[in-house]
Amino acid sequence: MLYLIGLGLADETDITVKGLEVVKRAERVYLEAYTSILHVGKDKLEAFYGRPVIVADREMVESSSDEILAGAHESDIAFLVVGDPFGATTHTDLVLRAQELSIPTKSIPNASILNAVGATGLQLYNFGQTVSIVFFTDNWKPASFYDRIRENASIGLHTLLLLDIKVKEQSLENMARGRKIYEPPRYMTVACCAQQLLEIEAEKGEGICSEDSLAIGCARVGADDQTFVCGTLKELCDVDVGPPLHSVVLIGKRAHELERDYIRPFAINQDAFDKSWKKYQGE
Amino acid sequence: MLYLIGLGLADETDITVKGLEVVKRAERVYLEAYTSILHVGKDKLEAFYGRPVIVADREMVESSSDEILAGAHESDIAFLVVGDPFGATTHTDLVLRAQELSIPTKSIPNASILNAVGATGLQLYNFGQTVSIVFFTDNWKPASFYDRIRENASIGLHTLLLLDIKVKEQSLENMARGRKIYEPPRYMTVACCAQQLLEIEAEKGEGICSEDSLAIGCARVGADDQTFVCGTLKELCDVDVGPPLHSVVLIGKRAHELERDYIRPFAINQDAFDKSWKKYQGE
Repeated sequence: MLYLIGLGLADETDITVKGLEVVKRAERVYLEAYTSILHVGKDKLEAFYGRPVIVADREMVESSSDEILAGAHESDIAFLVVGDPFGATTHTDLVLRAQELSIPTKSIPNASILNAVGATGLQLYNFGQTVSIVFFTDNWKPASFYDRIRENASIGLHTLLLLDIKVKEQSLENMARGRKIYEPPRYMTVACCAQQLLEIEAEKGEGICSEDSLAIGCARVGADDQTFVCGTLKELCDVDVGPPLHSVVLIGKRAHELERDYIRPFAINQDAFDKSWKKYQGE
Repeated sequence: MLYLIGLGLADETDITVKGLEVVKRAERVYLEAYTSILHVGKDKLEAFYGRPVIVADREMVESSSDEILAGAHESDIAFLVVGDPFGATTHTDLVLRAQELSIPTKSIPNASILNAVGATGLQLYNFGQTVSIVFFTDNWKPASFYDRIRENASIGLHTLLLLDIKVKEQSLENMARGRKIYEPPRYMTVACCAQQLLEIEAEKGEGICSEDSLAIGCARVGADDQTFVCGTLKELCDVDVGPPLHSVVLIGKRAHELERDYIRPFAINQDAFDKSWKKYQGE
């Protein structure tokens, strides 16, 4: 059996009791380590589980999945995923491959940023589609997110923005030369995201994510030092919410007063927040 | 400290290790028992936790929240919520009340149906706003869900429908007479939901949720006997997917081929499914 096991969001104790039981008895334990990260390292997980953990990078999961699945007809293989197993496309690929090989699969769900963001006080019912924001480079500034945000905004919904992480990336030069030398990991910050949104807004000019759009910067959701900062995108360009992972919610105009009451204490400037909110409601 | 602790979706072992630690040491443990249910009863939870659990009904949480919060300045109170603590509005109310009383709060996230539905293979990124479907009565058939589904459909997104549960409800007669006699619990089925959708479609006639709309009926998501059945709404009117809880996903037209490959094995009739899918893509 292939078990896909969600680890939740923060540390080794966010695994479920059910998930931990499988990890303890599985033949091999893999940790998917490129779509998200916990706030603790592999060593902490190994100590907690009392057994070795094999780190699976994108290359292994996407190109050598049969290696992961080897022996899964007879014994249990645990594939650990930060958050929930079905947060990222790549894991449905792995399940489809297992099915092709007639290997039974089971998933053990856990919290994902997609629902844990409810801790902002924004109602999960009022979120539209989720959007990924990737690091811009000098020559590559993909802006399709702008259309997605426009669609959500057109019906008054919040938009959760998941921010890029770069783990085990090669420089162009190292890639060209086939050298397996990797750059240090990079995690997009709330401020970087706000700046990129405003950069695209300046090009497009439709007022979809403008300087006075209200948003919440989220850091380390689910951890003890979980942090929320609410302000305009202009304000968020300058915030520092500490270590990764970060995400951002653009607030939809259909927001309810109960949501306002809950997020107001997170405001960078509560008077400015009240004014922005009134403007939102007035439009 | 007030701890809001997500229990996940199926049984007593879906709690996180972190959540279980708090439950074991808390002064009192409440179980919110009216917005959702686990597949195990209070007795099973008490045996697993090794301590008593107080069932909190809607009346207690909404009208006597100070009773729950009593003593939380000095000691830890655990408030257990099926799924994730922030799935339902009512819990942000409880946190706001705690804040008014200067009681610190912390939430421990867990899987919610809002992310666990990713196990269908439909990409969580492609879901729009979530919609609740309540039991119709002879005189009361609220249809505002139709507008929400139309909004999601207009931008090609999937819609998750959460189905009504009636727990500790009084009959009108018992309510009028002030008798605290409660009806047996009722849980909406996939078939009932499909029938209600078609009833409103017949009135409105916009083709938003019509007989040939593709949907997935979900039962007991996250449990060992989790079941998915894919078909048209007409087909789903006659399915029996077993015991509660059920939910339904209306498939958006922006669906990807990888999503199709994953859900196809769930089809009631795979040939009919292929035809419906092609029609979806063609429109």
